[in-house]
Amino acid sequence: MNKNRQFKLARRPQGMVQRADFEFVETPVPEPGEGQFLVKNEYLSLDPAMRGWMNEGKSYVPPVGLGEVMRAGAVGRIVASKHPQFAVGQHVVGLFGVQDYAISNGKGVTPVDPELAPLPVYLGTLGMPGMTAYFGLLEVGQPKPGETVVVSGAAGAVGQVVGQIAKIKGCRAVGIAGGADKCRYVVDALGFDACIDYKAEDVKKALKTHCPQGVDVYFDNVGGDILDAVLTQLAMHARIVICGAISQYNNTAPVKGPSNYLSLLVHRASMKGMVVFDWADRYGEAAREMAGWLASGRLKTREDIAEGLETFPETLLKLFKGENIGKLVLKL
Amino acid sequence: MNKNRQFKLARRPQGMVQRADFEFVETPVPEPGEGQFLVKNEYLSLDPAMRGWMNEGKSYVPPVGLGEVMRAGAVGRIVASKHPQFAVGQHVVGLFGVQDYAISNGKGVTPVDPELAPLPVYLGTLGMPGMTAYFGLLEVGQPKPGETVVVSGAAGAVGQVVGQIAKIKGCRAVGIAGGADKCRYVVDALGFDACIDYKAEDVKKALKTHCPQGVDVYFDNVGGDILDAVLTQLAMHARIVICGAISQYNNTAPVKGPSNYLSLLVHRASMKGMVVFDWADRYGEAAREMAGWLASGRLKTREDIAEGLETFPETLLKLFKGENIGKLVLKL
Repeated sequence: MNKNRQFKLARRPQGMVQRADFEFVETPVPEPGEGQFLVKNEYLSLDPAMRGWMNEGKSYVPPVGLGEVMRAGAVGRIVASKHPQFAVGQHVVGLFGVQDYAISNGKGVTPVDPELAPLPVYLGTLGMPGMTAYFGLLEVGQPKPGETVVVSGAAGAVGQVVGQIAKIKGCRAVGIAGGADKCRYVVDALGFDACIDYKAEDVKKALKTHCPQGVDVYFDNVGGDILDAVLTQLAMHARIVICGAISQYNNTAPVKGPSNYLSLLVHRASMKGMVVFDWADRYGEAAREMAGWLASGRLKTREDIAEGLETFPETLLKLFKGENIGKLVLKL
Repeated sequence: MNKNRQFKLARRPQGMVQRADFEFVETPVPEPGEGQFLVKNEYLSLDPAMRGWMNEGKSYVPPVGLGEVMRAGAVGRIVASKHPQFAVGQHVVGLFGVQDYAISNGKGVTPVDPELAPLPVYLGTLGMPGMTAYFGLLEVGQPKPGETVVVSGAAGAVGQVVGQIAKIKGCRAVGIAGGADKCRYVVDALGFDACIDYKAEDVKKALKTHCPQGVDVYFDNVGGDILDAVLTQLAMHARIVICGAISQYNNTAPVKGPSNYLSLLVHRASMKGMVVFDWADRYGEAAREMAGWLASGRLKTREDIAEGLETFPETLLKLFKGENIGKLVLKL
């Protein structure tokens, strides 16, 4: 392959992302300059946050510019290098974008070891989603043994890790996910105490059943009606970790604010936003601890692997339709 | 006067409170039994929280039962006593209800000194609203010198104290209030750095002007659109204290949740609910410090005094119409 296929952002999406929001181009494979290297991407990370990066306006990172290659995490192999610290043959993870090849100066790039874990795991449990789960739950949620931790998007890349860490820390873990398959995975394969199928159950009632002492920590990946349902079932001094709101990202109407937020007052509870980058200096520590749990079988992980760069727009949509179980990656 | 006039809750209000939600009765003045005393109320406290107490259902305190005397804080004088710790002639503050006379066993009752401060102040700055401001701002908001503190309902019983304590602690204080009179009071009499008239100004734009570094602490008494506007102007690591939501208490539609709550994520900010009762064991400490500030003139306080028990329903409405400046009390 001597072409570099790329998806560039062609326009700001209105509502649900469409193929026409991107421009698909083939360009020559670039050559690294001094202090640079060339990565051949092997797996792309598909994340809910990508939808936010496509919008105009201030957020926790600048938006992707129109005409720019769509931003994405990826793991790949270095195929050419004029960089003293990065050698050909090395596997690395970084924001290499939705393309076959990327040039990098090494900033924000981490070497990974394919012997230690399969490459897609470095985009999931040992990557940003795993870090998000680890620091969001432990540092923001502050769960104590015996408490009840509820996580939405429980079968997703972040949610699957949140519930398992909660169990490791001696908490009761209750997932919320869409569909019987996901709920079975969460309970049977991952060992959550329960999982509520929001497509088939009344979430508020089911929370009453599965969290008889109320919800101590709620890790929210979805927002919308599910956040509102959990707000009705808080325990005193509950902590809500606002990690994302996938139910709202493709809205054309304004975001649905949580009508039941005054429950925070009644329960002296808090709602706190998080962005994983704030713990960047501690990723290594977390990765070592999680790699240990993975090795000992206390932490399980699953990746949902789609194939072919050319399917990128449709594969990304699987996230917003809730079709993936585990971390969604695209194999190139 | 040998009758006890009482307002009893006759029905649960739908939307705005009406006189017909209460039953006005005259009953004989009761006599205290062993371990009880009789208080003649002199001032009633009218508080936004009273609207919540009239609703059915779980909150931070049980609702007022239908047929029960409407709950209200009051300051009064003991006119008969068979209680060893309370003597005739003493002034006391407690939840004595919307009536001329109340029987008490002393639980939750605090003696007050009319020489030290005028009686209505014990329902305001030295009472629950003052305690709410003190602990909500200092313990929940955790303002640091040089930070910007914004408070809504700035000319109200709680808000007037919040902004002044913020100034005492070396912060920039910006109020939000409805109308030029209130804003003038807040800036000219109380020394806030600025006050935004939400009835005449675009709150979001005005916040940009008056809080160029963003809002570090937002003390929210009102909820609704103003909460949403402040969410767009947060500084990193901002703290929002959820004290109340007076704009939503008389809604017949569901409470308006804050659409912009994902700003918590972008700014790693938190939103925390508070109920002042949690600091009951420290009221004495706070009252001593605030009495000192009052005495030295660093803290000013104003009460809006209406007259006549019989006007209770209409006087209460002044709160929800935003007609009071300072702590609203009803003189009997």
